[in-house]
Order: sequence, then C-alpha cells, then structure tokens
Amino acid sequence: MKLKSMMKRLVNLLAAFILSVNCISAQNLTRWVNPFIGTGAVQSSLSGNNYPGATVPFGMVQLSPDTREAPDWAQASGYDYNDSIIYGFSHTRLSGTGASDFIDILLFPTISDKRKSTFTHQHEQARPGYYQVLLKDEKIQAELTASVHVGVHRYTCSDGDQLKLWLDLDHSANKGSWNRRIIQSQLRMVSPTVVEGYRIITGWAKLRKIYFHLEFSQPILSNQLYDGNRMYENTPVINGTELRGLFCFDKKWNKELICKVALSPVSIENARLNMATEVPGWDFEYIARAAETSWEKELKKIIIQGTDLQKKIFYTALYHTMVQPNTMSDVNGEYMASDYVTRSVAKGEVHYSTFSLWDTFRAAHPLYTLIHTHRIPDFVKSMMRQYDYYGYLPVWQLWGQDNYCMIGNHSIPVIVDAVLKGVAGVDEEKAYEAVFNSSIVSHPNSPFEVWEKYGYMPENIQTQSVSITLEQAFDDWCVAQLAKRLGKEKDYNHFMKRSAFYRNLFNSKTGFFQPKNDKGEWIEPFDPYKYGANGGYPFTEGNAWQYFWYVPQNIPDLISLTGGNKAFVAKLDTFFTVSYQSGALNDNASGFVGQYAHGNEPSHHVAYLYACAGEPWKTQKYVAYIMNELYNDSSSGYAGNDDCGEMSAWYVFGALGFYPVNPVSGEYVIGTPMLEEAVIQLPGRKTFTVKAPRKEDNEVYICSMKLNGEKYTKNYITHQNIMKGGILEFVMTASPGK
Amino acid sequence: MKLKSMMKRLVNLLAAFILSVNCISAQNLTRWVNPFIGTGAVQSSLSGNNYPGATVPFGMVQLSPDTREAPDWAQASGYDYNDSIIYGFSHTRLSGTGASDFIDILLFPTISDKRKSTFTHQHEQARPGYYQVLLKDEKIQAELTASVHVGVHRYTCSDGDQLKLWLDLDHSANKGSWNRRIIQSQLRMVSPTVVEGYRIITGWAKLRKIYFHLEFSQPILSNQLYDGNRMYENTPVINGTELRGLFCFDKKWNKELICKVALSPVSIENARLNMATEVPGWDFEYIARAAETSWEKELKKIIIQGTDLQKKIFYTALYHTMVQPNTMSDVNGEYMASDYVTRSVAKGEVHYSTFSLWDTFRAAHPLYTLIHTHRIPDFVKSMMRQYDYYGYLPVWQLWGQDNYCMIGNHSIPVIVDAVLKGVAGVDEEKAYEAVFNSSIVSHPNSPFEVWEKYGYMPENIQTQSVSITLEQAFDDWCVAQLAKRLGKEKDYNHFMKRSAFYRNLFNSKTGFFQPKNDKGEWIEPFDPYKYGANGGYPFTEGNAWQYFWYVPQNIPDLISLTGGNKAFVAKLDTFFTVSYQSGALNDNASGFVGQYAHGNEPSHHVAYLYACAGEPWKTQKYVAYIMNELYNDSSSGYAGNDDCGEMSAWYVFGALGFYPVNPVSGEYVIGTPMLEEAVIQLPGRKTFTVKAPRKEDNEVYICSMKLNGEKYTKNYITHQNIMKGGILEFVMTASPGK
Repeated sequence: MKLKSMMKRLVNLLAAFILSVNCISAQNLTRWVNPFIGTGAVQSSLSGNNYPGATVPFGMVQLSPDTREAPDWAQASGYDYNDSIIYGFSHTRLSGTGASDFIDILLFPTISDKRKSTFTHQHEQARPGYYQVLLKDEKIQAELTASVHVGVHRYTCSDGDQLKLWLDLDHSANKGSWNRRIIQSQLRMVSPTVVEGYRIITGWAKLRKIYFHLEFSQPILSNQLYDGNRMYENTPVINGTELRGLFCFDKKWNKELICKVALSPVSIENARLNMATEVPGWDFEYIARAAETSWEKELKKIIIQGTDLQKKIFYTALYHTMVQPNTMSDVNGEYMASDYVTRSVAKGEVHYSTFSLWDTFRAAHPLYTLIHTHRIPDFVKSMMRQYDYYGYLPVWQLWGQDNYCMIGNHSIPVIVDAVLKGVAGVDEEKAYEAVFNSSIVSHPNSPFEVWEKYGYMPENIQTQSVSITLEQAFDDWCVAQLAKRLGKEKDYNHFMKRSAFYRNLFNSKTGFFQPKNDKGEWIEPFDPYKYGANGGYPFTEGNAWQYFWYVPQNIPDLISLTGGNKAFVAKLDTFFTVSYQSGALNDNASGFVGQYAHGNEPSHHVAYLYACAGEPWKTQKYVAYIMNELYNDSSSGYAGNDDCGEMSAWYVFGALGFYPVNPVSGEYVIGTPMLEEAVIQLPGRKTFTVKAPRKEDNEVYICSMKLNGEKYTKNYITHQNIMKGGILEFVMTASPGK
Repeated sequence: MKLKSMMKRLVNLLAAFILSVNCISAQNLTRWVNPFIGTGAVQSSLSGNNYPGATVPFGMVQLSPDTREAPDWAQASGYDYNDSIIYGFSHTRLSGTGASDFIDILLFPTISDKRKSTFTHQHEQARPGYYQVLLKDEKIQAELTASVHVGVHRYTCSDGDQLKLWLDLDHSANKGSWNRRIIQSQLRMVSPTVVEGYRIITGWAKLRKIYFHLEFSQPILSNQLYDGNRMYENTPVINGTELRGLFCFDKKWNKELICKVALSPVSIENARLNMATEVPGWDFEYIARAAETSWEKELKKIIIQGTDLQKKIFYTALYHTMVQPNTMSDVNGEYMASDYVTRSVAKGEVHYSTFSLWDTFRAAHPLYTLIHTHRIPDFVKSMMRQYDYYGYLPVWQLWGQDNYCMIGNHSIPVIVDAVLKGVAGVDEEKAYEAVFNSSIVSHPNSPFEVWEKYGYMPENIQTQSVSITLEQAFDDWCVAQLAKRLGKEKDYNHFMKRSAFYRNLFNSKTGFFQPKNDKGEWIEPFDPYKYGANGGYPFTEGNAWQYFWYVPQNIPDLISLTGGNKAFVAKLDTFFTVSYQSGALNDNASGFVGQYAHGNEPSHHVAYLYACAGEPWKTQKYVAYIMNELYNDSSSGYAGNDDCGEMSAWYVFGALGFYPVNPVSGEYVIGTPMLEEAVIQLPGRKTFTVKAPRKEDNEVYICSMKLNGEKYTKNYITHQNIMKGGILEFVMTASPGK
C-alpha cells in the first residue's frame, strides 16, 4: 500500500516534470491552435470571420488566402471555410470584424496565367505563423509565414513547370462598400529580384498608404504589367489605379520560389528597412519557426490542463485575441498619425491600431491588461495619439483612423482601467485630459451637449439613443473614477451624475430602458423584442431585452430598479428562456439562449449577473452551457463574429472561471472554471493558478473555493488578488448549490 | 546747331535718367498690370480663365474670390467677370486652365449668416498682390493680399455691425468632376484667435493634403461648427467630410478683422512655421506692399516703352506668366513627393509644381529660361523629382502629381533646353537619365513599344495618334540633342531616327499628316477640317490643318514635304484664310484667323513659319494682327484660356519681336517687334534691348535690323546673342517688304 502510494506519487511527479519540460519547449502550445476555427459558418449561422493565414502576435502583416475576389461583410477576413477557390494571398486584413477592409497586395502563383485555383481542406493546413495549401488546378504548393512587417511566401510547382506570379494591387475588399476606391498605386521593377510600389486607397479607413518592398529568391525573366486592360511588357514602372503584374521565372531556378514582402504605412524606404531588420535571410523554415516561437512565447502566458478539445478551443481563442491590435509603426518608429502626417514614436515604443473598442473593451482589453501588461502603455499611447491629432479618443480605430463604427467611447474604460490597475508607463494626467475631453467634445453618435441638456439621448435627436445612454453612462463612470483618483472632485461629481443618466430612460411600468423624445415622452409603441441595427432605432444591433442589463457600474441599482434580487433573477430567467422573436433579427444576433445572443457583445456579461444577485449557480449553469455549446473546434467554432478577439477573450475568461463584468472595477465576477488547471504567468515571474479538478464533465457547479489555501466566499476576485500571485482552488460538483 | 545738338543730347540723357529712376522705384510697373484681364469671356468666346485675386510670383497661395459655388470648366479659376455673386475667398486655384481643381479653404464674412453676396465691378479693384471688393448685400469691404504660403484677408464692416466669418472646408472645385471627393478634414479651435485644420481631397490631383494655420486679429466670441447639417456649438474640434465653421467676433473689436491663413501640403506644424516665417505681423498694408514689391522686382526684368494699352497688355501678360509654377515646398523645405511621402529639398531649394507642359513648353518655359534663369534649376529638379519617385517626367503636373492631361512628354524639351542653354545648376547626366527613361518607359498616351514598333502611333492602338506622333517626334529630337552633347552617339542616332517618325504619317497625296492603323493603312474618310478633343480621334483639341505645322525640329523637311517654300507659303496662306468649318469645333478652338486658332496652343508658332519659308513679311503681318486683334485689356483680353501663362508668354515674345518656334534650338525666329523699346534685364547686370521706334501704328513691317550697331539679316536671333547683352534695332515700315 505504502509502496504503491509512493510509486503513484513518483509517477505523478514524473508526469508533472515531463509536463513542465513540455511547457517550456517550443512547438508545445501552438499545436493546440487551430487557425481554421472561426473561419466559416455552418448553414444559417454567423462566421467568426477569422482567417487561417500567417501572422505573428500583434503584427502588421496578416498573410492569408483570399477565397473571395472582393471580400465583404460575411467574408470580412477574405476567407470562408466553405469556399473552394483561392484568388491569392494578400497581406493585410481584419480578424473577426463584421465589415471588411485592408486586403492589400495580393500574390498568386500560376504556371499559365490563371488568377485563381480550386483547393480542398484535405490539402490545407495551418498553425500559428504558418499556412499551407495546394492550389489544385496547377498543383502548386503555397506556404506562408510572417514577421511583424513582412509576409513570406514559398511556392513550389512540379518538376518542369515554369512558375509565374501575379502581383495584384487592384485586389481589395469590395469596392462597392464604404466608397472604397484606389486613389493611386505604383509597381516598380527595381531589379530582377526586387519589386517595389504602393497603393493609396480610401475605404472603411479613410486613407491608407501601403508601401511595399518585395524580394524574390529567383530572378524575374520577364514581366507584363497591367493597368486595367492596358498591358505594358517588360516595363520598369507603372502608375495607375488598377495595377497588376505577371512575373515569369526561369525554369532552371524553379521549382521553388520564395517571395518576401515587407509593408510600411509610411514609405518604400521604411518597407525596405522593415525587411532588412526582420527578415534579411531566405530560410523559410527559420522564419516560420521564429513566427511560431513568438506565438509560443505569448501562448505560454496561460498554461492550462484540460481535455484536448478544451486546449484546442482555449489556445485558439487566446491566439485570436493576439491577432490584433496591429503594429502600425515601422521598425524605425515612424507611423502615419490620425492627421495623415508621418510622425515618430519614442524609441522603444510601438504604435498600434485596430481597436474595435465597442467589442474589445469588455473582455479583450481586460485580458491584455492581465497578461500583456507591458504592452498596455503602448496601446494607451496609441489611442492617445488619436486624441492628440484628432481631438478625441478612438471609437473604432483601424489603420490609425476612426470610423465611428458602433457607439460609446470605449477607449475611456480601457485607458482608465490601465491607470486604476496601476500599469506603469501610463501618464495619468495626460490620460485624464484625454478621457475628459473625449467625454465633452461632441462627435458622431456622441452629442454631449444633448447628453448634458437632457440627461439622456432623445431618440429624435440622437438615434440608437437607449444603447448610447446606457453605454455612455458607463464611460462617464470611468471618467469619474479617474477624476476621483486624481482628486478632481468637481469632475468626479459631474461625471458620477452623468453615469446615472441610464435611470432617466428606465420605465418602471414596463421594467425596461426605453427611448424618449426630447420632450421627455416615451416613444410608443415599445416592443422589447424588436431589433435595431446601426441607426434609425433606439437599440444598436440588439433589442431592449439585451440592452436592459448594461449598468455594469452600478449593478445593485439595476437590481433595485428591477425590484430586488428576486425580481432581477426572475427577469434573467425570462431572458435566458423566452425564445419569442419580433420581426427581423439584426445580422449580428446569433448564438441564442432565449433572448441572450452570445454572437454579439451586448449579452456578454449577462450570465454573470445571476452571481451578482445571489444566484451564482445560474451563472455557472449558463456560462458552462455557453462555453460547451456555443464554442467548438470546427470552422464554425464561434457563435458569431469573433470581433477582433472579443468572443475569444470571453471564452478565455470563462474557462479561467471569472469575468470582468465591469471591466474597470478591478473585480472579476466568478463564473465556473472549466479547466482542470490554468496557470497565468504574471510579471515578476509570479503565477496565479486556478485549479478545478473534476471527475465528470457535468461538474460545472462550484461547491467551495480556496484562495491561497484559505476558504474564499466572495462572488468575485480582484485584479490585485490575481497580480499578487497565488492559487485559487475550486471544488466542483454536478448539482447546483445555492 | 552744335548747342542745339548738345542740348538735345542732354535732354535725352535727362530723360533716360528719369526713366531709370522710375524703373527702380516701386509702384511703377505693377500699375500696368490689370488682373481682371482674362477673367471673363465676352459672349461666345473663351475666357482666359484667369483670376483677379492676390498672389505673389510663383507662390503657393492664390487668394481670390470665387464667383461660383463649385467652380468647373468654364470658370476653372473660380472667377468669372460676368458673374455678380461672390461665395467667398479661397486660397488656391489654377490660372488659365481648362479644368478646375484646388479651390481650398474658403472664408466669407457676414453680419448675419449669409454665405454669398452680390458685388459689382464698380466696387472692385485689383493690382498685383492685392484685391478688394465691396460685398454689397451687407456692405462689407473685403481686401486680400498674400505671401508665398500665406493669404491675408482684411474685412471691414459698417459701424455697429457685428462681424461673423464662415470658414468652409467643403467648398471646392465641382465634386461632379474628376471623381472629386473630400477624404477627410478637420477644423480645430486652438485659441480664440487661432484656428487650424486640414482637408484631404481627391480630384484632378489624385491626393492633396492641405493643412492650414489661421490667425485672427480679434478673438472669436463663439463658434458654430458644422459637418453637413449637423451643428456643433462652441466645440473645440470637428472632423468630417463636409465641414464649415461660423465664427462670431465681438462688436467692440470690430469693425476691422484681419485673417492670416498659412497653408502647407505637409503638416499643421509646417503651416505654422510658414506663417511665422513669412507673415509674423498684422500690418495689412505692409504685407500688401511687400507682395507688390515682389511683383515689381519680377516685372522689372523687362522694361518696355510703348503705348499705355501696350504696357497694360504686356505687363499683365508678364504677370500671368509668373502666377505659376507654384511653390510646393514649405519654408523648411518639406514637400509631398509624387509617391505621397513627405520629403525635403536641399537647403535653399524650392519644390515647384503646376506644370501645364503641353501648353507651357512652347513659350512660357523659354521665357522663364530667359528672364528667370536662377529659378530654372529648381523647376528642372522639381520635374526630375517626379522622375525619381514616379518613374518618368511630368506630362501635366499639379500639386506634384501627374494627371496625364494632354499628350507628349514636354518636360523633355524644358529640361533639355535648360542644359543646352547652359543653365548653371542642372545635372546634365541626371537630366539625360530622366529624359531618356521618360522616352522609353511607356505610360498613358505614350506607348513607346508601339512607337518603336510602327514608327508612328497607329490610331487603332493609340488614339490622338497623329498629334502624338508629331509632338513625340519633337520630344525625341530633344533627347537626341542632349545625347549628342553628352557624346552618346548610339542614343543620338536612335532618337534622331524617332524624331523623323512624323514622316510616316505624311500623306503626299493629300499633303496632310493623317492617321494610319496598325496595318499601315490610311484611315478613311479623312477630313482635315474635322476636330478632335482629348481622345477617340487622331487629333487633340484641333484638326489636321492645325497639327500640320508641328515639325519644329526640322522645318526645312516640313517645307520640303509640302513641296518647297512656295507651296509651303501657299499652304500657310490657305491656313490663315480658309474659314470653312466641318462639324463641331473643339471647346478649346477659338481666336480664329482662318484655320489658325490662337485660342489653343497647336497654332501658336505657325505665323512664324512664313519667316522660315522666306516670306517674313507675312509673319509680321499675322503676328501683328494677332497681337492687335486677339489681345486686349478687357476681361475678355485673351482669345482663349491663358493655360498657365502660355497665351501670355506668346504675347511677351511677340511684342519683343521674336519667338521660340523650336523652343530648344536656342534660336528665336524674328516676328515683328511691337514696342518702341524693350530692355531685358539679364544675369550679370547685362541688358538686351530691342528698339523699334515707329511713327504710325501700322508700321508693323521690318525694313532693316541692326544687332549691336551692325546690319543684321538673319530671320532669327540666338539665345547666345541675347544673353551676351546688346541692342537689336529695327527700322519699321508700313509697307510689307520682301
């Protein structure tokens, strides 16, 4: 018995040792990432709009196949797992957004002059930083990898075939959307192995300049450059708005061609420098390994134990959270500011963009604050640069420019959170100046003079009024918290007052937040099930049911307005069970549990509200349900658009067992840990471990908790608790507790 | 007798002394300039498309009233003398072009919130660097002046009125043309007396960024900023695509408001620096005097004696030749290059743009070479910067960007001319590289592979084929001349061969240059009177008659092709007398003398060809006729668009008595001097004087000539002759000689 027990312990120790060796070896965690998750919806659901191509954490280059000639809404990232044709490999894109943009600089290999090919998933694979596909029509193997600013392609054709390559500067997200138009572009044959150029394009981002420096491993024998239908043969340079080039390579050099493409938003010189700095050599395997290593380094920040399926979903989700924000400065620190002037960051700093803030302030940014603390000052400074040159903080920023997509001013919570959590390197006074001014300088969807005058947004003056009223009240609460910290009492009081404006739209007769006009009258008829989209209705991509829950700054008050815990829980019960629908749903509404729509962000915190009203087991029930039923490891693995990693971040927090219901409070509401163990790597070599061993999958209910060995009974854990390091242990059970 | 003779000499000397004193005093020559000449056509003629506003020689700012809400073709400069409404005063425009662009940053003063006013010419005046008008509706006096980068406004209202000011960033050339669209703009209230902002716009120039720094002499009390119909009250900053602001000033400060607006194509910081450098103070009179002095300095380069009418037309023409090329770099040397990257010129250099080369290579650039020799290296370097970042030299460049308007590659003659005339500071080898590559790298309207293959442009491959064939052959001849100078014999032979390609389109049966297809067949039917426009026809803005004469590189050969001097003169006679018209004329065809159309450039050298064929008196007859009949001092003073000073430069040469028929040969064909005397100021304090005293106006024929006191019988004078300094004396007569 004793010997047996000792042996068992030894075995356990050995297993743990092997595990830890595994954990620090490369190629360990990246193998759980499946970049195809989220890349295509099954029938009548919403794709994650992720893409399978090659990128590095927070990189500029997103090199991936385009399965659409002109990517748009439902294939915003350029790729749909359900497609069977590849048009080439372009270098930039958004991950998980509902709208498409970027899709710059397309390469496509051919042995004739084809411009597309069929492909099958049987001959396609992807891992972090690497993608490979067989272009079936002409049997060309395509492999992709990337560094921060450089995309690297390796094309291999059959023996005896002569490889040609299309370079397409006309290919872009659909020109029918966002008034998209190529302003000007250039393609220049610098030498037999170097092509350079740029394109200037207006679209969802108002003005993007994309300069590129391209190097080939083999010399070009001849070229055909096109502007529209006009062909120029063996010409050194071409300028126009519909440019593409066909390059022919010598048979004797083939069958392998490596193409390195460095991008810069500033100049061709910078593109050259980016390549010289990041990818001077030609060893494709080495570059791909470096890309994978950079992912491994980031993924290691949370080391989990669980089932293979859990690991696949978890690490793919973690991966998707790091596909953006995207580096927007060159290696020399130059970037294009929001006023379209080339400027420089300070030495060592990086300028980032792709801030889908309406989505990501909820869980993605809190996750960054937790595990990418060292990047937070750069994220914050990047947003504040918009304040400097644009006058207010980003609403939804891509390529350094605001598109005012969605509502609210949710860089405010992100920045305030960074200060309140004490992230080093954030200038508190400057941060306050930025959040304060972004809360008083009116801009699209944020008419603050109206806000201050009425104490709510009247729908007849500002559409999406109820959603804006709820979300802006939260942003105002954030400003107040920073004012308080900095001793600005008058501002604190003013913004606390504004943070309660949601109350002015609460209709106690119906128990909903409802639209009013500027006379203070309720707008009738009111249908809490009816959906709005992005304007013309009081609710944004949702209905009154879904927006009812958005008072994260004062949940007790929301509960009190509803009539106390019991009534609140009852209302939640209805929310999660009533499947009634009224009229057309919004495109973004998907992943339903009753009225709850996990496919879009307004619902994301709602399951955790049970815990705030004294019935945590219902939180546990629904969170477990959502994690298990609305995430999977297929191409249709998300219940809706991943929205720049927000859906993914929700899962990461969910699996860890807590969620930032109020992303700025420094408290995470406890849900239900899904993993046997999760170890979060913290600054200063500290770790915070969550343990939740269970015998059966259905043990989703928390029986008891211990924090660092002591019994823990709160329904939340603080950021400080976590950052100190320690162990949070759960005892799980299959039967709901109280 | 002797005493009388001495007295006469003394009187002459005294007169000369008084004259020379006059010449160096300010306010002397500028008074002959009437900026209203060319600003409006009389019924059924073509306006010069000039504008009356304030600018300085070769300045960036062109501050002038806009009498159109959305200036376009027939009012390309924004102003039409026949209009009666002013919409405000904007800071940039083109002078004399057929197409409109620029028209940036409009100010309009009001005491209500009006956005336009009636005006009359009775209460309007202009002189170089100064413009004034009474805005009748609200009795506001508006005065404008400018420095290179800064526009200065002075608005004066009646006692007791409260002045307001519109700042309109939406106002532009017509958005219906050239796909024009504002990409983004910003308006920022920096302080009560400072407003800054920018607009990014695509139009005829593909992408222009116009940053501004605006200072008021009085503080703004309140503002209303608009984005379209959305009004923001007393807000500090606004971003959007339809921006304007209404600023209210205090009564107590008024009634005078001075506004200084500095522009930069690079950044707001540079706009600030431009103002600090050029217009730090508030003395409107001083700034206007400085502007006028800068004009005086330039106008003084040719001092003429003649009738008041001659002086008015001559000095206004000379003025119009210096309204462009426009400074495009900031005072710190930064500019936006053709690849849309901010770059810097070397210290002391200026980057210029607005090169309407199809027009201006004929006479305007030769005039610059003669009297603005010190600016030539900057002009040449500015064009060569396009070669550096774009791959070939400008065809028609505005705001540093090519629009490929018109045909040929006429920066080649401009650059070659600079080298051949020995202008210091032009890098000959670099110049050759640029003109060589611009003659072999195909681009729109210049398919050189076609050119080389067929020896002409086949109309079915390249439209405007005959016009292009004739003009490109001349450009090729220019390349050959530079190749010869640099000892590149192979290139010389090659380009000399190309320079004779016009012969391949000469149809000896009809005696015209005619279109062929790619099979070498004449395209029938052929009608030498039928007009083309800018594509879809073998002739560009003209007919076969007008293009027949364009072989400036080999006039003897053209004469020979025509059948010798007699036949050539007979053909010229027909040309100048046959008024037959076939079908619709091109819009640019005007100022007819038979088929000769002085309103457009292809005809400009033709009257001088008589002299080349041995009948100079006919040259004298027609040149005198054109000067006297097709130029006047009214608003309709030009026979067609001034085309960035080309029509004006023609007049300047015409009046001096010689014209650069081949602008690169270094020879000026002698026409008929119109002025009693003209003294050209040359580098090294030398002068070249043309004297042509006459008793009667009808003495337009040359009886005899003396160069530096020696009998002169050539039909041309060389550039070297002129640059050495000296006196060319004409004896004129009323009866045609031989």
